[in-house]
Amino acid sequence: MADADQVRNSVALARKARLDARSGRLTGPTANLAPGHVQANLAILPRALAADFLHFCQRNPKPCPLLAMSEPGDPSLPELGADIDIRTDIPRYRVWKNGELVAEPTDVRDIWRDDLVSFLIGCSFSFEEAMLDNGLPVRHIEQGSNVPMYRTNIPTQPAGVFGGPLVVSMRPLKAADAIRAIQVTSRFPSVHGAPVHIGDPSLIGISDINRPDYGDPVEIRPGEMPVFWACGVTPQSVVAAVRPDFCITHAPGHMLVTDLINSRMAML
Amino acid sequence: MADADQVRNSVALARKARLDARSGRLTGPTANLAPGHVQANLAILPRALAADFLHFCQRNPKPCPLLAMSEPGDPSLPELGADIDIRTDIPRYRVWKNGELVAEPTDVRDIWRDDLVSFLIGCSFSFEEAMLDNGLPVRHIEQGSNVPMYRTNIPTQPAGVFGGPLVVSMRPLKAADAIRAIQVTSRFPSVHGAPVHIGDPSLIGISDINRPDYGDPVEIRPGEMPVFWACGVTPQSVVAAVRPDFCITHAPGHMLVTDLINSRMAML
Repeated sequence: MADADQVRNSVALARKARLDARSGRLTGPTANLAPGHVQANLAILPRALAADFLHFCQRNPKPCPLLAMSEPGDPSLPELGADIDIRTDIPRYRVWKNGELVAEPTDVRDIWRDDLVSFLIGCSFSFEEAMLDNGLPVRHIEQGSNVPMYRTNIPTQPAGVFGGPLVVSMRPLKAADAIRAIQVTSRFPSVHGAPVHIGDPSLIGISDINRPDYGDPVEIRPGEMPVFWACGVTPQSVVAAVRPDFCITHAPGHMLVTDLINSRMAML
Repeated sequence: MADADQVRNSVALARKARLDARSGRLTGPTANLAPGHVQANLAILPRALAADFLHFCQRNPKPCPLLAMSEPGDPSLPELGADIDIRTDIPRYRVWKNGELVAEPTDVRDIWRDDLVSFLIGCSFSFEEAMLDNGLPVRHIEQGSNVPMYRTNIPTQPAGVFGGPLVVSMRPLKAADAIRAIQVTSRFPSVHGAPVHIGDPSLIGISDINRPDYGDPVEIRPGEMPVFWACGVTPQSVVAAVRPDFCITHAPGHMLVTDLINSRMAML
């Protein structure tokens, strides 16, 4: 448990990360910025799609744990930080038109619209911190690479225009560590929560564990089993499949750093 | 949650099971008697061994979750039920001399001694009930057979004269059910708690999953993985290895039915 001074200091670090992004000083990934703070995935959609997407999140809380949703046109997100401007506070965005990536700006004020709704979705950084705090290894962090992610044959629950397969991230663990990881991450349902699968990858439609669909492969050592969590890439892949005429996401790894404290996301 | 009438009725059933054992009307296994009530494994040891055995339980809470320990010579166990007489209230006992099974009586009053200490240890019936309540399959119950149990290469933490390998029980589950079973059974640390291993049996020294050391084999279906829990046979096997000049245990499956409520054993 952080004492009051530590929390004040860490909130200052979270705010600094956002202000650095806003001013253009920070344009890179946000991993390890403001340790202890929740970081969030971003999807910005036109209002016409927002109701369906909200319903999709409601139906699929494991891949799409919704931390906050804005009012249409409103760039503030007071639940996540008093001063947030979602048009500037992420280091790098991706702008999509009709499903094609058209730009990777560091600021989207010039293309902002009054009908845009922001969805902020929990991210695995939070439960990985809890794993590390429990002495559990996180291989892709050890390797300094991106987490391996895979499209599965597990369907999401569709809602309106949105649907498609679940995307999972994978961390290899020894069996006893996998059991502890299930206990630890079960406490964090708002940041993907417990794993969705353990063991044989082929049972969820993954044909080659060494060839992830996103991210980088990681070493699986003798005596380790792959452990799979629902991944925040799922909503991005689901949105991409719809090819909306316009949408904005964060660039991979370039997250919103929020004032929320990871350890306070634990349900118990 | 049981209401007050249900609890009164279920305590009456627990007491009836003990009174039936006491009177000799009940001499068979206790599975399914007094549903919802904690049943307990029994080890009765001479006082000279009791301190070491208590230390062994303290060091090995997963295989030896101690529910209650009596005073020397005292057959009562007020923590587990107001009227318990441990010399009569178990349907069938096993009496051991120098490590040899010498009798299986239904009453041990005639061989009771002033130096005997009773240890009552949590049993898997409690977490199996929680699994069934969660819609999880328990294969050996479906099959109407005894749970398969295996000696492992996982050492217990020795204490005094007691030590030896961990014995585990196994229930096959699909991966998603295994994850849920870990969550469910983690809530019950006083009745063995979370699994100790999942997946590859050879990693814990089990060479043939279809040939358990105790109990009966069960079917493992395609897509299922074996899930292993620390087993209350561990303390029995550890005691047997010491070959005490005198000890008493319950006969397998012939447990002490207590007044304790399974659902109240959950830590949360």
